[in-house]
Parts: sequence; structure tokens; C-alpha cells
Amino acid sequence: MRRAVALSARGLGSTSPNPVVGCVVLDAAGRVVGEGWHRRAGGPHAEVHALAEAGEAARGGTAVVTLEPCDHTGRTGPCSRALIDAGIARVVYAVADPTPDARGGAHTLAAAGIDTEGGLLAAEAAEVNAPWLTSVRLGRPYVRWKYAATLDGRTAAADGTSRWITSGAARADVHRLRAEADAVLVGSGTARADDPHLAVRGVPGAVQPLRVVADTEARAVRPGARVLDGEAPTLVAVADDLPDAATAHLDGHAEVVRLPRAGTGGGLDVDALLAALHDRGVRSVLLEGGATLAAAFVAARAVDRVTAYLAPALLGAGPAALADAGIATIADALRLTVTAVERIGPDLRVDAAPALPAEPAEPAASASVPAVHVSKES
Amino acid sequence: MRRAVALSARGLGSTSPNPVVGCVVLDAAGRVVGEGWHRRAGGPHAEVHALAEAGEAARGGTAVVTLEPCDHTGRTGPCSRALIDAGIARVVYAVADPTPDARGGAHTLAAAGIDTEGGLLAAEAAEVNAPWLTSVRLGRPYVRWKYAATLDGRTAAADGTSRWITSGAARADVHRLRAEADAVLVGSGTARADDPHLAVRGVPGAVQPLRVVADTEARAVRPGARVLDGEAPTLVAVADDLPDAATAHLDGHAEVVRLPRAGTGGGLDVDALLAALHDRGVRSVLLEGGATLAAAFVAARAVDRVTAYLAPALLGAGPAALADAGIATIADALRLTVTAVERIGPDLRVDAAPALPAEPAEPAASASVPAVHVSKES
Repeated sequence: MRRAVALSARGLGSTSPNPVVGCVVLDAAGRVVGEGWHRRAGGPHAEVHALAEAGEAARGGTAVVTLEPCDHTGRTGPCSRALIDAGIARVVYAVADPTPDARGGAHTLAAAGIDTEGGLLAAEAAEVNAPWLTSVRLGRPYVRWKYAATLDGRTAAADGTSRWITSGAARADVHRLRAEADAVLVGSGTARADDPHLAVRGVPGAVQPLRVVADTEARAVRPGARVLDGEAPTLVAVADDLPDAATAHLDGHAEVVRLPRAGTGGGLDVDALLAALHDRGVRSVLLEGGATLAAAFVAARAVDRVTAYLAPALLGAGPAALADAGIATIADALRLTVTAVERIGPDLRVDAAPALPAEPAEPAASASVPAVHVSKES
Repeated sequence: MRRAVALSARGLGSTSPNPVVGCVVLDAAGRVVGEGWHRRAGGPHAEVHALAEAGEAARGGTAVVTLEPCDHTGRTGPCSRALIDAGIARVVYAVADPTPDARGGAHTLAAAGIDTEGGLLAAEAAEVNAPWLTSVRLGRPYVRWKYAATLDGRTAAADGTSRWITSGAARADVHRLRAEADAVLVGSGTARADDPHLAVRGVPGAVQPLRVVADTEARAVRPGARVLDGEAPTLVAVADDLPDAATAHLDGHAEVVRLPRAGTGGGLDVDALLAALHDRGVRSVLLEGGATLAAAFVAARAVDRVTAYLAPALLGAGPAALADAGIATIADALRLTVTAVERIGPDLRVDAAPALPAEPAEPAASASVPAVHVSKES
């Protein structure tokens, strides 16, 4: 199963709106005869790849798969049927499928006389699939907020300079995060100050994420901005009270979506922005700042993971990573749990998740998802 | 030697102005027959403790010691002589003694026909002795700046509340740092806001450090302040331009030292403060804040180690750990090297040291210290 989980991770960034899945097929003697992972939405599922590689050797064998095999016919046929047809005798899966359409595979397999067992290495498998599981549970994309700061919490010096706070190794790691995400998001302050490109560089085989700028007033993404260079698709989200002419400079260069503001004269409504992304098939968002947009997401309880790159440096002045998120007193601090600490070059990467699962802004359609999946996020 | 280094660490906090030293004596057959460490200034050196435990078994044996045995008669006799008299055949030490008075032990031992070798596990031994070695090298106390902050760098919420940002486990760890230090230092802002006690609690056998408040205007430590409770000695540093009456409320409750300001109307001169502490035998200082005093130390290049307790929490507002230290642009950031990362309960402890050795404020008397010791601090 550990091998299957590793295989599943290869699909990160290219399978949305589908989950990532890995599968290993063993023959009757327990030898590995097939491996597969789900590579892209619309393509064959992991089980189909692995069974094809195994061929006749699968008969009487075992399929080890990170997610309960699907039981429905979408763009491909049900995996439960493919496993039965291949003569598989035993199926071991990690995480039960929480989706109303696809679930039930385990039941179908068992009814066909296949020895079926779930839950093996479920935590590890769910961790890799956290974006998809979160998006199913909450009905919105999974949001990872990434920032780079000094040990004393500054994202730039007093004069605004920030190149570079972290090392090249840390910045390369950010490109891997981008490659795993369906969309990369920044706010208007970052767009204006940094003119970021937001595309993935240096990750072989990466699918470019959707580049998204929350540009409420349609003034931050100017003609010639690097996000308009066509190397990856770009979406500019603006307030729905702007006149049409306000976005004329974006015509033909980027998709524009008009969204309600959170309040009169304020920034975009976070839930509306996430819904617009979800409608476009986005299941995971890498929120790259700046401090104001991140604060809006924290205030909306829409941060599922924090990835902080901390450079061992002190500045003593300059902007902080997170702006006012409406937290006035220590008891209201957003408490997280550290999930991983890693040294990347001279820097630290700290991953943390909210100590309690983020609450959906409104009752989600997926309230029936078993708690066992929910707990993987906490 | 690893055992000797561990023994040496037991002396941290109680040997100043002496170094910490550990010693293991093996008999001629290589069996451990004696162990010792330097427990307190004026008491027997580590070698003497270990030789006493070994007795006659030391004859023809080996002494493993973390610091080159001393060659001078201070409050105790020279260890070189004690080792010779005990009939030790071989001495292995880690770090050469950098002090003009005590050095030369290795030469004396070798001249007496003892097989003498230095440098074994020198890095590990020097790390434990970093406070003393730094104080010898720079002629001022070693300074560790400790702070507790959220992942986004806040030391309190917007309303000033800060109890508690970090866990009980992290706060207990701070008491261990206090116990290892000769002095604990805070500024007037912290004294006024938190009325801290600054003594060590919950560390069995700890020697209480000198409690020091940099109270420039003599207005922060009020009558009844917790640092005046007599549980540990207290020193209040005030500006030398204050009238005598300004410190009358401290008479009989704390020692008062008058020091020059860094500038007209400014805070105390950091070098003068450190010199005053050095004069009192203080070889290591735990600087506990606040942000303004820490910034003065950073600006004076007088921080030798940073220990950050980072709580996995977000605040988005509130004071930062470090105030303006005169760093205006990213190229001038104080770059550090991470020396250790540890999880303490839910929190992270990050230790870092300046990437280049802190420069002495004036040419140090110990310019002849071999570079091998200096490099342990970087």
C-alpha cells in the first residue's frame, strides 16, 4: 500500500476534478505484476492501468488501491467491474470513496465474492488525497496558504525589498506546490507590487495551474502583466459592481469573472471566489498572498493548510505575513497543528493545518461523508 | 568523550565565570573508573572529581576531558599537576583552553611524558561551552535572545493579550534556558507590561540567575514588582543622567547600576550594559525581550544565538517579536544559520546563530584564540 500511495502522489496536479489514486496488482503468489496511477481526468483509472500491466497474471491475485474502487460509469467504466472481470481474488483499499455517485465499489466487489478490505494506511493515503477529500467534504476547493518570511515574521524589508528572503531551494519547492495545485491565487497588492508570473517552472511534466488574481478594482493586472503572457490560463476576478469598461484591457488576454464584494467597497467575497473556482473544476488552490488576501481567507475559515517557508534571518521591520483577520485577542487565535517540519536548504518549511476542521460557510452537500475522512485533515 | 561532554553540560548555569568541563577517567585496561564535572566556580575542577573517584585505578590510565586541562593555580591547583601526580598515562581533550592564564596544560602534560592529544569531538564540546568560549573571545557575555511568537511572528494579540501563545511544555523549556544562564534580561516595556518574575521554576538544583531589567528611566520596576521579591538577585540598570531620587524606590530591594545611554534620550548603551554584567561575573545572558530591547541588541550585533518558540497559531495583528533594528533593506537582513529544530509539545523551537561571528565592539584581548573555537559559534 505504501507503494500505491507513492504512485497516487504522481497524479497530484493533473487529475482534478478527480482524486489521485494509486494501484498495485499482485499475482496469486504475491509478486508485483502491475502498477498504475490515475494520470488525468478522463483517462483510465489507476486500477485499469495496473490490470493492463498485469494481464493474465492478475487472475487469482490481489489489487492494492489507495481509494475504494469506483462503482459508476463516468468517462470510463466502473473499476469494480474491471477488477471482477480480471479475476482478482482480493482487494485491499485505503480510503472509502465519499462521493455519492462513485461509492459502493467495495459492496459490489464483496457481492461478487472478492475478499475486500478497507482502511489500510488510510491516514497516509488520505493525506496525499487531502485536496480532493477536502473539496468533496466542503464543496469548495482545498486551500493551501503559502508564504515566505523571516524568522521574525517579515515578508519584506522596510523598503519593500523581498528578493530574496528564502533560498533558491525553497523557491523551487514552491514551484512543486504550484504544480500540485489546480490554481494559484494572489491578491491585487501582490499583483501590483511583484507582477508575479505564477506559472510553474522547473518541474518536468507539470500541468500548468490556472493563474488567478483577485483584482477587485481591476486595476492591479495592467496590460503587459506577466500573468497575461499566455503560458498558462489566467482568470482575473473583479467586483461585480464595476462598469464593463473597467476590464476592457483584459479582453482576449484573460478570463474575467465578476463576483460580489464581501462588503460595500471591500474585497471580493471569499466564498464566492472559491465557488467560481470550484465551478471551473478547481479542487485545490495555492494561495500565495499577500497579507490582505490571506487575512480574508483566514477570516472566512477557508485555509486548510499553511505552508510557511521561514528563512533564518531577522529584519525587525517590514510587512508581516498576515494582515488583520479580525482576531483581536489571544483566545481567538487560529490554532493549528504542525503536520511537518522540513529543512530546505538553509530554510525551514513548516506545514500546519487548522486544529479543528474548517467549517463550511454553509451546509455542504457532502454532510454524509464519513468522519474518518474528515479527521485526516485535522 | 561523548560521555564527558554530557557530564560537562550538567555544569551549565552554575560555573560562571568558569567554563563547563566534563572528565572521564579510564584505567589501564580501558574501564571507566571515574567521572566528574565542574560544578561551581571555586570548587574542584572536573579532572579532580574524576581522579578522586578513580583513586589508584587512575595510574597508567587515560583521562578524557572536554577542555584542555588548566595549567594555573587559581582557587584550586593546576589540573595538569593533578593528572601527573595521579600517574595518568594519556590525556585526550576536546577543546584547547583559549585563556592566557590557564592555557598551556597540554604542553606541561606532554613535557611530563604523558601522551596528550587534543581536538576529539571538539565541535560538540565547544557547542556546550559556547557561552564561555564566546565570552572569552568577545570579552562580553554570550547573549541568547529568546522569544515566543505565533507562526506569523506575533508575540501578543492586538489587545495585548499573550497568555499563552506557546504551550506549557515550551514555557518549561524556557525555565531550563534560564537555569543555564547567568543572567536573565528584559527591557522596561516588558517589565511594565508583564511584571515578570524571571526566576527559575521547576528545574531541580538550578542556580537562580541574576535578574536584570534595563529600566532606562527607572519607571518600569515599581515597588512591589515581582523581580523585587528576593527569590533571586536583581539588578536594575538605569540611565546615568537620572537624579539619585529616581531610584530611591529600589534601595534595599535591588542593585542599581547607572549606565550611559546609546544616544541622547535613548535607551541604555548595549555594550555598557554587557560590560557591567561581565564585571559581575556574568558570562551568559538570556535576553527575554521585549521587541525594543532585542532590536537594540541586534543593532549592536550582540546576539549570539536566537531561540524562537513558534506556536502553530495565526493572529494577523499584534506586536512583532523584533522592533526596528535599523535594517532598511533585504540585503542588510541579519542572516542566521539554523542550528537545531525541535518540536516541544505542539510548538517548534528553532535555534539559530548569526551566519558570521558577531564582531566585538572593540578589539578583544583574546584575539589569539585559535579559529577552531571561533567557528563553533557560526
